[in-house]
Amino acid sequence: MASFLTVTSATDPRLADYTRLRDVNLRRSLEAEHGLFLAEGEKVIRRAIAAGHPVRSLLMASRWTAPLADVLDSVDAPVYVADDATLEGVTGFPVHRGALASLERLPLPPLAAVLRDARRVLVLEDLVDHANVGSIFRCAAALGVDAIVLSPRCADPLYRRAVKVSMGAVFAIPYARMTNWHDDLGELRAAGFTLLALTPDQAATPMDKAAMGDRAALLLGSEGDGLTSHWLDEADERVCIPMSPGAMSAGVDSLNVTAAAAIACHALLRR
Amino acid sequence: MASFLTVTSATDPRLADYTRLRDVNLRRSLEAEHGLFLAEGEKVIRRAIAAGHPVRSLLMASRWTAPLADVLDSVDAPVYVADDATLEGVTGFPVHRGALASLERLPLPPLAAVLRDARRVLVLEDLVDHANVGSIFRCAAALGVDAIVLSPRCADPLYRRAVKVSMGAVFAIPYARMTNWHDDLGELRAAGFTLLALTPDQAATPMDKAAMGDRAALLLGSEGDGLTSHWLDEADERVCIPMSPGAMSAGVDSLNVTAAAAIACHALLRR
Repeated sequence: MASFLTVTSATDPRLADYTRLRDVNLRRSLEAEHGLFLAEGEKVIRRAIAAGHPVRSLLMASRWTAPLADVLDSVDAPVYVADDATLEGVTGFPVHRGALASLERLPLPPLAAVLRDARRVLVLEDLVDHANVGSIFRCAAALGVDAIVLSPRCADPLYRRAVKVSMGAVFAIPYARMTNWHDDLGELRAAGFTLLALTPDQAATPMDKAAMGDRAALLLGSEGDGLTSHWLDEADERVCIPMSPGAMSAGVDSLNVTAAAAIACHALLRR
Repeated sequence: MASFLTVTSATDPRLADYTRLRDVNLRRSLEAEHGLFLAEGEKVIRRAIAAGHPVRSLLMASRWTAPLADVLDSVDAPVYVADDATLEGVTGFPVHRGALASLERLPLPPLAAVLRDARRVLVLEDLVDHANVGSIFRCAAALGVDAIVLSPRCADPLYRRAVKVSMGAVFAIPYARMTNWHDDLGELRAAGFTLLALTPDQAATPMDKAAMGDRAALLLGSEGDGLTSHWLDEADERVCIPMSPGAMSAGVDSLNVTAAAAIACHALLRR
């Protein structure tokens, strides 16, 4: 059972896990150093704990202790209770969802483990924006993608904003991180996956018409530049989402990566 | 030809159009009162001017006067040139895209005018988030939706963040605003549009299987609550995007409105 501790100072050292949530660089080093991540809001906290992440502590406004009572009963960690001004002083912005948890990361499974029983997977190459990563996880989970593979440099799905935008879907879908950007697509091919590279190039095969076979992996590139030429070349087929000819001539000629991912995942899962 | 004016004070009254861009409430009243809106970044400024919006003024770092030289030659408005610190002092945040334009709104066309030659339209009911509105415009334009109809309370596509997220697609697709939330869907039906109401309800017809006929309108609801029961009842058919049964049982049971809109628009345009 959790122990409740009232805190009244935003500089209380016991709240160090929650310091300055808007400072991306500070948070990256803090989270990496301690192997922690943050979950925000009742629903996401529940999902993170249900996924087996050990709880380091919780921090919340007193109004949240009752709705989370069953969770707090089940964990053995301090629960820091603070008023809204103290919360904002710690985090650097108003905490609308009123409850935060600091949790321990778990070792990611190896690539082979997440591929073993999967038929439809996404492979994300070097996405930079955490909100995009969270949005793609949410969409992939809802539509039924079996697993997600991240390139070595792809943004972290457990970074606070990714967790939040995913609505906790980062805990619902198995994922692994490649160790070798150059060679690891070979592991997917060896496992029998057809590799489909999504590109804005309208000369590619429309996603709806792509031959997928029993196992298929959809490769999605980074926000600015899309897939690298190496991954485009490694793919079995280049696929696209057909754009309106009128839009192309008006210069409105691309979808953002989350919209493209949503449409492509839907096509990937329809068959 | 534009006249160049160097400004060195963030409180210069000539820059009032650009004041405190992050203050949503201030901006809403300022923009409504003066019938103006802002475009950010070279590409979006070009699109806004090409769409016929008269220019009130421009504000930019000096490095942007050369890339925009042809535009500045063609407009008859003051061009305020400021250093980055002054720019940030005026707007309240670093202006990464380095160039802003204040433009005049144009009267929106009546509903009948945007429907006249359209076969595939979106109807947005009471969306609140400007980024979502911008994202949906971008996606709709790229995929070839002919027109967008807004409910009376739907968020403004010319609000700064909507314009920015749309990448200027708000200037590429005709749109109108309903005057009567209760009755104006009747005007679409009278014009021969099949009304399809998008809902997360998995008992609805999968979007891919919906009967559309020659003219079809896809109704999208607000972020939190979806479509109102009145609009659901007015529709000819309720349509859904099939979710994974496993995801449903894991509680990851919905798409955000932009992902849902992307998938539904793609299905709307495929036929």
